[in-house]
Amino acid sequence: MAAAAHVSPLAPKNFAELPAIDGVRLATGAAGIRYQGRTDVMLAVFERGASVAGVFTTSKCPSAPVDWCRKNLHHGMARALVVNSGNANAFTGKLGREATELTAKLAARAVGADEDEIFLSSTGVIGEPLDATKFEGVLDELAARARPEGWLDAAKAIMTTDTFPKVATARARIGAVEVTINGFAKGAGMIAPDMATMLAYVFTDAAISPEALQKLLTSGVKGSFNSVTVDSDTSTSDTLLLFATGAAEKRGAKRIRKADDKLLRDFADKLDALLLDLAQQVARDGEGARKFVEVQVFGAQSDKAAKKIAFSIANSPLVKTAVAGEDANWGRVVMAVGKAGEKAERDLLSIWFGDIRVAHQGLRDPNYDEAAVSALMKQDKIVIRVNLGLDKGKAKVWTCDLTKEYIAINGDYRS
Amino acid sequence: MAAAAHVSPLAPKNFAELPAIDGVRLATGAAGIRYQGRTDVMLAVFERGASVAGVFTTSKCPSAPVDWCRKNLHHGMARALVVNSGNANAFTGKLGREATELTAKLAARAVGADEDEIFLSSTGVIGEPLDATKFEGVLDELAARARPEGWLDAAKAIMTTDTFPKVATARARIGAVEVTINGFAKGAGMIAPDMATMLAYVFTDAAISPEALQKLLTSGVKGSFNSVTVDSDTSTSDTLLLFATGAAEKRGAKRIRKADDKLLRDFADKLDALLLDLAQQVARDGEGARKFVEVQVFGAQSDKAAKKIAFSIANSPLVKTAVAGEDANWGRVVMAVGKAGEKAERDLLSIWFGDIRVAHQGLRDPNYDEAAVSALMKQDKIVIRVNLGLDKGKAKVWTCDLTKEYIAINGDYRS
Repeated sequence: MAAAAHVSPLAPKNFAELPAIDGVRLATGAAGIRYQGRTDVMLAVFERGASVAGVFTTSKCPSAPVDWCRKNLHHGMARALVVNSGNANAFTGKLGREATELTAKLAARAVGADEDEIFLSSTGVIGEPLDATKFEGVLDELAARARPEGWLDAAKAIMTTDTFPKVATARARIGAVEVTINGFAKGAGMIAPDMATMLAYVFTDAAISPEALQKLLTSGVKGSFNSVTVDSDTSTSDTLLLFATGAAEKRGAKRIRKADDKLLRDFADKLDALLLDLAQQVARDGEGARKFVEVQVFGAQSDKAAKKIAFSIANSPLVKTAVAGEDANWGRVVMAVGKAGEKAERDLLSIWFGDIRVAHQGLRDPNYDEAAVSALMKQDKIVIRVNLGLDKGKAKVWTCDLTKEYIAINGDYRS
Repeated sequence: MAAAAHVSPLAPKNFAELPAIDGVRLATGAAGIRYQGRTDVMLAVFERGASVAGVFTTSKCPSAPVDWCRKNLHHGMARALVVNSGNANAFTGKLGREATELTAKLAARAVGADEDEIFLSSTGVIGEPLDATKFEGVLDELAARARPEGWLDAAKAIMTTDTFPKVATARARIGAVEVTINGFAKGAGMIAPDMATMLAYVFTDAAISPEALQKLLTSGVKGSFNSVTVDSDTSTSDTLLLFATGAAEKRGAKRIRKADDKLLRDFADKLDALLLDLAQQVARDGEGARKFVEVQVFGAQSDKAAKKIAFSIANSPLVKTAVAGEDANWGRVVMAVGKAGEKAERDLLSIWFGDIRVAHQGLRDPNYDEAAVSALMKQDKIVIRVNLGLDKGKAKVWTCDLTKEYIAINGDYRS
């Protein structure tokens, strides 16, 4: 991988400081999987175990670690998470399964757990065997020096073509007790629904059953990671895992067994917001991105139709290149609405860039001021709004523009 | 529009010479719709009328000329075709309908026909009103000087970001009588199924009923224009029209009423081949294209599944940028297979670039020679073959690579 020559202009100005979460210890190291002079493996240890929930790529050809996590999710308990960058261990056949087994074995030994309590992810090159023997010794050492800090380092260790680490934190109340939610993610290319994550990990000290946790995650992913696209490509490795150590129980937090428990409301809200924050950071670090784009569709026949149309706009190369060229080309937005396959009445459509309505009822808006729109298109964040004028369906999705830099990154880097 | 700085390196070395077709006269002119110093309108006159069949964009927001053609197709008879470039007359509301009506009226007067016997297309900018009064006088003049030659000029008049005109010709036998088929097309961007044409027009002197003609065209489009993609975007204007003057009847060609008439077999074969030729020329002139890509998928659960997977590969920005970078990145091909949503077994997949098998049964092929593949990837035409190993479904689709030039063209040009 070529080191990122620059940081995305859409990166946050500064990184959130993530506090310790009782029951989670972290460490990162350099296993030399592919990169030189940087960390490429992170270990999270859950001393007393953690409930775990997961959402994965919809790819029919998932990576070996995705298979591994899915297989072990049924019992809902985790003792450690191992993530490496540099090699995705995807399309590696029997060798891939053996690599996950060996990694889990080494991690299980290092933290004193069963192999099926180890969760794994790999990101990087596809189709090259992952030499998991490189984790030998490294994981023992990481387990020995894991500590409650180091969230930003963990986020850095899993980066590939990312230009900045993605972290987020939140506080939520479960009854009278405050709990913490921390998360980090990596993204860049191959981001598309469904399950657009790339890799994201969220941790909390709340005490929540695996069943309830899974429902929270499945619900939260819809408006966040599954509403983000960079290039319409779906990775073989997309993984989102949520771990709850339950340590807050010691401080009087009630252990929650059901997702519809009213005590979970604030937690669910804060979790959804944190997932959205991470997902948007992924879009802001889309390969070659110079503009962050929010697409709002309303007036559709249903929310589902609205989301399909919003993604048709957000994934359209012609819309994305127009945004890159700072051209408020609403004709291409119409094209993208039209190709989505959902009901649309040309003569009922209205389209806005930012607050400026550029098209109304099938025609260019008579008050459309080209100069004002040109100024707006120079901004970092572009909001495209479409009113279909049919019914109440609505959706919001996020993406970035499509620039020459995207081609340069993907024409040179073997991912 | 910026004039094309160069001709696509994938352009044919020389253009087919199209003979006259009895019953068709052509002329081109400059109506000044948008471009300066070039022709932007073509007229084809069918003196004694022609049977007509059509296939159009699946966009839910089609252009006004598409609506117009659809409306007039029911009677199956045409007296003239008018195509302009520079303005697509799409998303122009009531003004758009009025522009088609005025254009048809002017053309009808010029050739002495009814308005509903005039077929229309427009290509270029979306969302700007088309000033059809500019055709006043021009169409009269074109009708007066239309002649049996000038096919290449006609193809040139309808170009937008195309870097070369697309023409093709064929001879076919209907019984003992030889008939001619001529066609021309324009494409470039916004090429995607279903109905991936952009604009294409095919003419023959064969005597075929509108019903039979429509069946031939609907069948022929599947393996040609609906198997080509440039950027997954679908135009609001895609139109393919097939005109049969019937003049060959004078030379003894039987008038064909049904598409399953055995006398049509050779004609259908030649028509299919001509449509494929034109469609491939469109992909070869994909915006910024430097490589022509053929994707073959076989061993799928069904032909339909194979086509969906083939398009998933052909539309993947990551596959297309890899081809642009001359990187035989089969990992991205696996990714594209996986995201297509059709059945695929990772460990049964085999992938070839050209004749070189790079992956076999879920693993890199042990005989995969990087140097040989590198040499192959430098060629103009890249064939990607995927065997799913499941059943007998197969499909072939065509596309081009995705280069920085695509971004430059679409970031600057308001289409």
